[in-house]
Amino acid sequence: MTRLAILISGTGTNMQAIIDACERKEVPAQVTVVISDKPDAPGLERAKKHRIPAVVFEPKDFPSKDAYELEIVKELQKKRIDLVCLAGYMRIVGPTLLSPFKGRMINIHPALLPSFPGLHAQQQAFDYGVTITGATVHFVDDGVDTGPIIVQSAVPVKEDDTVESLSARILAEEHRIYPKAIKWFAEGKLTIEGRKVKLR
Amino acid sequence: MTRLAILISGTGTNMQAIIDACERKEVPAQVTVVISDKPDAPGLERAKKHRIPAVVFEPKDFPSKDAYELEIVKELQKKRIDLVCLAGYMRIVGPTLLSPFKGRMINIHPALLPSFPGLHAQQQAFDYGVTITGATVHFVDDGVDTGPIIVQSAVPVKEDDTVESLSARILAEEHRIYPKAIKWFAEGKLTIEGRKVKLR
Repeated sequence: MTRLAILISGTGTNMQAIIDACERKEVPAQVTVVISDKPDAPGLERAKKHRIPAVVFEPKDFPSKDAYELEIVKELQKKRIDLVCLAGYMRIVGPTLLSPFKGRMINIHPALLPSFPGLHAQQQAFDYGVTITGATVHFVDDGVDTGPIIVQSAVPVKEDDTVESLSARILAEEHRIYPKAIKWFAEGKLTIEGRKVKLR
Repeated sequence: MTRLAILISGTGTNMQAIIDACERKEVPAQVTVVISDKPDAPGLERAKKHRIPAVVFEPKDFPSKDAYELEIVKELQKKRIDLVCLAGYMRIVGPTLLSPFKGRMINIHPALLPSFPGLHAQQQAFDYGVTITGATVHFVDDGVDTGPIIVQSAVPVKEDDTVESLSARILAEEHRIYPKAIKWFAEGKLTIEGRKVKLR
């Protein structure tokens, strides 16, 4: 069984989708630990409901970002984590956290990258006036939302959409493709070749 | 009937799709003139087959880009053109040509803008490793592929794709959505509001 860590900052709906997919045995993995950088992240409660260990590390309790990330790395190594899943973790991952998990850390982004990287991707897409946006699961590299893409899903923008209705439609796709990407990883089907992810 | 001008530089397959849609009466418009910046553009022959006036203006025959574009504007005005369709026209439209046709000039781009603007969009998408790309019809503004979007279509990138197979799949969508956008324009259904195109 592939051992997953999920990093969150908020409600953790993607985390919930991953937990559910694992519990339904659709994904040959188990969520071994949930880590939040916010003590009041509602996702922590969700983790507890599923009896998944939930840990909080607050950057303000550490002298530097390096020190903060090193503590996370220790936790991940202690739990023998195979794959780190960012799920609404609202920080840029630094080299201290990334290096030990390069090729083993993935993220979900609510847009069809490389369009609309960074914060508020749904709002960015809405304001730009695209008629198609979507969601992307990708390996994390040292850029912001620039890593090799595992899977994407296209979502239409409708005439009467608000940012909220559009975001909800994208979120439904996120919940579908994130577990799928984790399944492929857990089954050993993914290899990174340069910028590309091969699925076999 | 909406009077169309189509600007080409090459084979003119999108031009052909537009001509065919007009001839089949799917689009309430007629292609009134085809203008090429290259005397050997194969699209010129296609135009002649359909008895559509085809004109060549070569930038090298003019003292400046302004003078070149002014000649095109004269031709467009002489033919009382309602809508200018760029279809593989391999030049950046300058203010001389754009100003009189602002909101009445559209372009097709073989990617889901704002991803992969500029040249070789299919190659750019292929090299980036996206799993979804597509095509975009948009109004022309003074940027490169930045204008308000009328319609987009998503196209999957497949595991065994080459740039050529991917380009062919995108091209099929181009041929589908370009006539559709022209139809909406000709029916008076499009209004530009800021960056957004409203379809009613």
